[in-house]
Amino acid sequence: MKKTIALLPGDGIGKEVVDVTVEVLKSVAEHFNHQFQFNYGLIGGDAIDQKGNPLPEETLEVCRNADAIILGAVGGPKWDQNPVELRPERGLLALRKELDLFANLRPVKTFESLLDSSPLKKEYVEGVDFVIVRELTGGLYFGKPSERIDYNGEEAVVDTLFYKRAEIERILVSAFEIAKTRRKHVTSVDKANVLESSRLWREVAEEVGARYPDVVLEHMLVDNAAMQLIRSPKQFDVIVTENMFGDILSDEGSMITGSLGMLSSASLSSSGLHLYEPVHGSAPDIAGKNIANPIATILSAAMMLRQSLGLEEEAKAIEKAVDNVLNSGLRTADLADGGKFATTTEIGEEIKNAL
Amino acid sequence: MKKTIALLPGDGIGKEVVDVTVEVLKSVAEHFNHQFQFNYGLIGGDAIDQKGNPLPEETLEVCRNADAIILGAVGGPKWDQNPVELRPERGLLALRKELDLFANLRPVKTFESLLDSSPLKKEYVEGVDFVIVRELTGGLYFGKPSERIDYNGEEAVVDTLFYKRAEIERILVSAFEIAKTRRKHVTSVDKANVLESSRLWREVAEEVGARYPDVVLEHMLVDNAAMQLIRSPKQFDVIVTENMFGDILSDEGSMITGSLGMLSSASLSSSGLHLYEPVHGSAPDIAGKNIANPIATILSAAMMLRQSLGLEEEAKAIEKAVDNVLNSGLRTADLADGGKFATTTEIGEEIKNAL
Ligand SMILES: CC(C)[C@H](C(=O)O)[C@@H](O)C(=O)O
Ligand SMILES: CC(C)[C@H](C(=O)O)[C@@H](O)C(=O)O
Repeated sequence: MKKTIALLPGDGIGKEVVDVTVEVLKSVAEHFNHQFQFNYGLIGGDAIDQKGNPLPEETLEVCRNADAIILGAVGGPKWDQNPVELRPERGLLALRKELDLFANLRPVKTFESLLDSSPLKKEYVEGVDFVIVRELTGGLYFGKPSERIDYNGEEAVVDTLFYKRAEIERILVSAFEIAKTRRKHVTSVDKANVLESSRLWREVAEEVGARYPDVVLEHMLVDNAAMQLIRSPKQFDVIVTENMFGDILSDEGSMITGSLGMLSSASLSSSGLHLYEPVHGSAPDIAGKNIANPIATILSAAMMLRQSLGLEEEAKAIEKAVDNVLNSGLRTADLADGGKFATTTEIGEEIKNAL
Repeated sequence: MKKTIALLPGDGIGKEVVDVTVEVLKSVAEHFNHQFQFNYGLIGGDAIDQKGNPLPEETLEVCRNADAIILGAVGGPKWDQNPVELRPERGLLALRKELDLFANLRPVKTFESLLDSSPLKKEYVEGVDFVIVRELTGGLYFGKPSERIDYNGEEAVVDTLFYKRAEIERILVSAFEIAKTRRKHVTSVDKANVLESSRLWREVAEEVGARYPDVVLEHMLVDNAAMQLIRSPKQFDVIVTENMFGDILSDEGSMITGSLGMLSSASLSSSGLHLYEPVHGSAPDIAGKNIANPIATILSAAMMLRQSLGLEEEAKAIEKAVDNVLNSGLRTADLADGGKFATTTEIGEEIKNAL
């Protein structure tokens, strides 16, 4: 099989973890007799430095001509004082919008070999297996106006939480479709006791839910959800929510397994061109030291093989190799739990060997 | 000292926990030779049933004529299908707005005797002692428009996150004032990489911070804050944030100590008339069973004695009595950790005895 993969390493540890992931993918290609063409694109701070634009048109072209996209991470203190339009995150937000990557999937699943790295007690964490489906191209992130205003002579500011019914509907459909292949339970998170957008969200959730009689639909207020994620994370199968709530809850959720360096994600579009990236950010403090955990990106690549390229066996092979390496006791610094310390590239090598 | 206290028991377990708290306050009045006049007001579902309005004008009058207000909780499934304006929460939101209760303080502090009730490991929880200062009368909760709209023929919906600079400034001043009396560290939580309101928030935080050279100001993105609360809660002293972020983070934070039934809160106004309430809600599932934990409300009353009535010694007496009762091993059902089971009223009696 011949496939083209766009690579957007971005900033900080983004480059290191993408490099290692490419090595693993090359090894997969060899074993399974595929041809992967890798095309690089600039994004984030790196793109600002080289092109004066966090998402240059060339990068969009590279993406549009690919079968799937792997992103590292964007951002760093170097660009923090830049005007809004010249911030690394703008590149990521613009990419989401341009490619209509509306469904962000973040699986949170316990690794048996890492049970002890969670801040939560083992009995709370063992067996946790849910996925957060976050709406990614609407809400407060993109609503207009978003600006300073003069309010009767006083300085004021406004942001806008905006959704079209169709945007709410498609993300809920995604969630129910995923739930169908899992434990058939959707928790729709909103703030319907305060927000009108949440009341529409709840209505649409009911309508979509009625089309999936086999899937149980539960509504949960966002404040309660933030509690329940800690209090009893095992209750969740599929959590679906709007953009900002999803941003907060998925970062909170990532702490449950205690291994941010392990968490992969997929951002799915309506066109079929999807993006895969680790949940962790660019971690400028540890960049360039060859100590970042590449597993989140490697597992994101496995998600890509399965979801975008239809290569189930190959995806499983990567996941199995990761498991084996973890079981052998090797750990990057973020997971220091008594295992044997390994560098970014060492972990990559070991996973290749285990394939 | 003669003081008038408005009591708004509200719905569900609200009545039970307020009843017990009144008994404790009566006992304090007796011991310390004060006169507390208790005036009751209807709010929430109860007020809807009796007056057709979740916040009747009489209730506002009762509050305005008091030196401080104690609230139980509002809400319940009975009113969940009501139109927005006839929902119990509307009463609470309207009360906050009418009395300008703009600063919600939620202390999160570990109780030594309850260390094991947290979902988090002991080493993460021991010594946690921070307070969340949540803006309570602005942001998405009150911004207009908040409505369904027609967007080029499609159904859509909009909510508005609105702040005046002065509203941001006063909540930050509250946070810095509190920090001055504590460990002198403010974590200001925003989403400045996405929201214009957060960028103004950050600017104002810097300005206010400059007036408090002894207090360290740190900015943290809300998604990161949701992680850090679990990953290393001990790092926090004072967390200050806008209304919706505060709603989510404070409920998450309440899980750290594992004892939602223990957490008190104060909502402070500019006028000096403040409101005190437990963090937990109306818990309709356990209402009327005499098993709710009254301690959050009793500790809220202690906050009231200290902050609104200037009765420091009396506040300490209550806090000490609560500690003693917990150390004796008595526990309501929510804290079942091997202690000896006690009912709502039994806990109240024991606290009175311990005074
Ligand atoms: C970098 C930032 C704009 C982004 C977001 O808020 O969506 C990040 O936090 C994420 O979750 O992918
Ligand atoms: C009842 C609800 C409107 C309220 C809020 O969101 O402010 C509650 O969750 C709280 O935190 O006091």
